Amino acid sequence: MVRWEPGATDRLRVAALELYVQQGYEQTTVGEIAKSVGLTERTFFRHFADKREVLFDGEDLLQHAFVAAVAAAPPGSAPLEVVAAALASTAQHLEERRPWSRKRNQVIAANQPLKERELLKLASLTAAIAEAFRQRGVPDPAAALAAETCVTVFAVAFGQWIADGETRSLATVERDILAEFKQLMTALETAEP
Amino acid sequence: MVRWEPGATDRLRVAALELYVQQGYEQTTVGEIAKSVGLTERTFFRHFADKREVLFDGEDLLQHAFVAAVAAAPPGSAPLEVVAAALASTAQHLEERRPWSRKRNQVIAANQPLKERELLKLASLTAAIAEAFRQRGVPDPAAALAAETCVTVFAVAFGQWIADGETRSLATVERDILAEFKQLMTALETAEP
Repeated sequence: MVRWEPGATDRLRVAALELYVQQGYEQTTVGEIAKSVGLTERTFFRHFADKREVLFDGEDLLQHAFVAAVAAAPPGSAPLEVVAAALASTAQHLEERRPWSRKRNQVIAANQPLKERELLKLASLTAAIAEAFRQRGVPDPAAALAAETCVTVFAVAFGQWIADGETRSLATVERDILAEFKQLMTALETAEP
Repeated sequence: MVRWEPGATDRLRVAALELYVQQGYEQTTVGEIAKSVGLTERTFFRHFADKREVLFDGEDLLQHAFVAAVAAAPPGSAPLEVVAAALASTAQHLEERRPWSRKRNQVIAANQPLKERELLKLASLTAAIAEAFRQRGVPDPAAALAAETCVTVFAVAFGQWIADGETRSLATVERDILAEFKQLMTALETAEP
């Protein structure tokens, strides 16, 4: 008989991240994570495939959210309007997770295989969004370029959003970065000191 | 005594790619590659760290070429002008390698670890170009956005350039993609069917 642990996923997630920050990702075992919240290793594996997945399962949800938002934009929207709408919609889901995201980033930045995993997840996100644009009838290369724009703005804004002392919402930072991107793509005058 | 083999690097590179295409990357050994051009395994390892490096050593040269081109653009150029100049300059180096690049892409597309290696190389290229923009005095996020634009246009154009039947030069495809990217970033009217 498997007993269901209410809230166990979240408890395991929080406990794992704390241990990764305190003693290092490499040094932390699944047994320690489970024990720290009074659960067994077996229970851990009912919630996560491995200790790395604790850091990355949210990215699958994020990918679904982006793809759904691109699909849900009003028919006839210009690709850049769809990008802006998808960014605004997904930012809402993430907004409350800033403290978690800061710690998660600290763990990933300290570990090369995790950094590579993060980059590959972003590439997978880009591919999924490009496909969502094609499903809307946007042809290539516009579909690929719109997806790259979306993920570039997301990634650059996300990095700023979790920076020390940053208090603007993710949606606001994304709007500012998208505006700067548009300016960069149209500016012909000098933009250097 | 180590005897220097003139042209051995190129002979090994060509032979390796032929074997990867014919019998698969996984199935090919360093010994087979060396033997097919009358060289020893030991000689192979004087030229390449391993069989994967045959496919990726050109990417380091490409990164140096992009960084040098960004640094060499006239002072006061707008970031997008620097991007256009860097794309045009590096396209020249690659133009004669289309047949090689087509076969290389075929090998990489068939192998997940190689695909991941390629994505990580592109991420590393983006980081190096962003740093080159910072060295010019371009602040973030413009430096990061300019680098992402450069690598996005390069990657999308490269994919088109090696597509079956494509005859335009890489420089021309890049110019067309960059123009489409600018249009995407400024279009407000509908762009969907």
